[in-house]
Amino acid sequence: MTAANHFELLARDGHARTGRLTTPHGAVRTPAFMPVGTAGAMKGMHWREVRDSGADIVLGNTYHLMLRPGAERIAALGGLQTFTGWNGPMLTDSGGFQVMSLSELRKVGEQAVTFRSHIDGAKVELSPERSIEVQRLLGSDIAMQMDECVRLPAERSDIERAMLLSLRWAERSHRAFETAPPGYMLFGIVQGGDAPELRRASARALVEVGFHGYAIGGLAVGEPQSVMLAMVEEVEPILPQDRPRYLMGVGTPEDMLEAVARGIDMFDCVMPTRNGRHGMAFTRFGQINLRNARHADDPRPLDEQSPWPSARDCSRAYLHHLVKSGETLGAMLLSEINVAYYQGLMQDIRNAIAGGNFASFCERTRAGWATGDIAAR
Amino acid sequence: MTAANHFELLARDGHARTGRLTTPHGAVRTPAFMPVGTAGAMKGMHWREVRDSGADIVLGNTYHLMLRPGAERIAALGGLQTFTGWNGPMLTDSGGFQVMSLSELRKVGEQAVTFRSHIDGAKVELSPERSIEVQRLLGSDIAMQMDECVRLPAERSDIERAMLLSLRWAERSHRAFETAPPGYMLFGIVQGGDAPELRRASARALVEVGFHGYAIGGLAVGEPQSVMLAMVEEVEPILPQDRPRYLMGVGTPEDMLEAVARGIDMFDCVMPTRNGRHGMAFTRFGQINLRNARHADDPRPLDEQSPWPSARDCSRAYLHHLVKSGETLGAMLLSEINVAYYQGLMQDIRNAIAGGNFASFCERTRAGWATGDIAAR
Repeated sequence: MTAANHFELLARDGHARTGRLTTPHGAVRTPAFMPVGTAGAMKGMHWREVRDSGADIVLGNTYHLMLRPGAERIAALGGLQTFTGWNGPMLTDSGGFQVMSLSELRKVGEQAVTFRSHIDGAKVELSPERSIEVQRLLGSDIAMQMDECVRLPAERSDIERAMLLSLRWAERSHRAFETAPPGYMLFGIVQGGDAPELRRASARALVEVGFHGYAIGGLAVGEPQSVMLAMVEEVEPILPQDRPRYLMGVGTPEDMLEAVARGIDMFDCVMPTRNGRHGMAFTRFGQINLRNARHADDPRPLDEQSPWPSARDCSRAYLHHLVKSGETLGAMLLSEINVAYYQGLMQDIRNAIAGGNFASFCERTRAGWATGDIAAR
Repeated sequence: MTAANHFELLARDGHARTGRLTTPHGAVRTPAFMPVGTAGAMKGMHWREVRDSGADIVLGNTYHLMLRPGAERIAALGGLQTFTGWNGPMLTDSGGFQVMSLSELRKVGEQAVTFRSHIDGAKVELSPERSIEVQRLLGSDIAMQMDECVRLPAERSDIERAMLLSLRWAERSHRAFETAPPGYMLFGIVQGGDAPELRRASARALVEVGFHGYAIGGLAVGEPQSVMLAMVEEVEPILPQDRPRYLMGVGTPEDMLEAVARGIDMFDCVMPTRNGRHGMAFTRFGQINLRNARHADDPRPLDEQSPWPSARDCSRAYLHHLVKSGETLGAMLLSEINVAYYQGLMQDIRNAIAGGNFASFCERTRAGWATGDIAAR
């Protein structure tokens, strides 16, 4: 528990919390949703739109960036913030997860993971130490420890082996991070699959090592929501109250309400941009599929009460046309509409927690989603 | 020559002219470059960026829009300006050119062209009258007559046949447009391939019919620039000085300087957005290929003196990375940078003509292009 604390808890409402995380590139209001800018870019969005949407922090993928354009190159160019022009807080993952999902011929060893790049087939080695080195070269405000994430369902023995390996990697990551300048943060990652006692053991051991914040990893990988939330409930009481908690790769708006209610402060997910590219819009009426022919002649916007201009000004007919025609602008508009919806939701969540009415806010919000879209006409 | 005149000539410098064309949706400063928003969208650009770039008017493609989402549908939704959210002047082509280049099983008859849609194979008929009807349903500020455009090189007999057919279609288009509300415009199109006497005959006959403006079509279809400019020179003295002249489908920045010097007022081309999607940037140093490895480590922007933010703020290294990675943002940034470069060039051209120094402006501009890009480092 030696890591300095940069998190300030401002209010609680039940288990839900709102606070402020101070990073070298600015403050992050929590609960926070981090849009995913995989390879140094948000798909279909200018950085100015990401900023305008209300995002305080974005996520970059170490795996992609280390392979192209390369961590040393980005460092020479002034770090990820200068390189991309996103001059705000940035969290990077460790690269481990995508080694597992994207690369070929990977081999997990105690010392490191070796794999072949999905871009050019080059053989690459990633160790916990190299992952930290890469993330420091990138200039990430928040680095993540390298871990091994097991897809569920899995054998308990596999889950345990990966959890214990991740713990040893956590310690090595922690040591490798010791020379990082003040203000930069390292988060440990709780593993343990869907096994409550493994999750608890992982959390306890990580807290023992002492990180700036704690992530819960290896969820939102295909298991039911109830399992994910049960694992959050197992882990949450063990994590220090004064540190931020980050539920990795989550999720739907509904997932986030449930997780915030269980004490989670940070989220990331590709869903707003990916679903936007596939013609789906997130709204207070729930998800709307713009491919549906019911929108073809509808002059009404997605949501006339939205604070986001294109959600309020573009007709459903126009969005339908763009999506059906495969026009880039359709993906661009729906990506920004979705990221803005997520950010608006987080702002409403923060306000509700600060106002002590998070439960009634959740009830109202879920009722809106359940009612569904406005009637066709 | 009965068509009302909405064009005001403000200054001349040699054959070059600057003026103002007043349309129902606003004024167009000439010389004007019209970015191409094929199917009701500019590829990779939000309309707010098109506006910010300095574009007064954009072009929509009748062929695409009549097939999807359909002219009657767009009319019911309030016309193209309301439908797209581009609330400024819009010119539409007649659809004829793309029937020739995109559709299948087309058959050109005296009465109409019949073809199969490239989208769903549906059989469609397009006559000069239907083309005008479609363009009026779309709400175009400037409609174009239907014509037949012959690819060069071609037999003189084919060129003549197409030119004469286009003239008969011009008269039918003109009659079909008689009931259009005041302020809306119809342009005739000079055809005649690379045959000077056919070009002159076409221009004289069109002027006899009397249009709001005159386009020169069937150029920039593969012939040398010298042929294109020679045809402009043949036609220009015949066209009335008080009407706008539009050189269709042109072109490169260099093409535009040459054509403005020969009395052309309007241009359209997909080049800024298409080349942007292929990693090319238009700058005062000439065209720059961002795929080139020389940019990989270059922290300098494309042009630190550009008035356009992303041309001034994004590093060449970042643009190179985006293009190499196939990130949408690369195409988005280069499209807006290129359209803004074209618009900046047109503004400089207008200023130079108004100031009576167009020739020296051209010399300076060409010298910049000829010098080429800044040295690698």
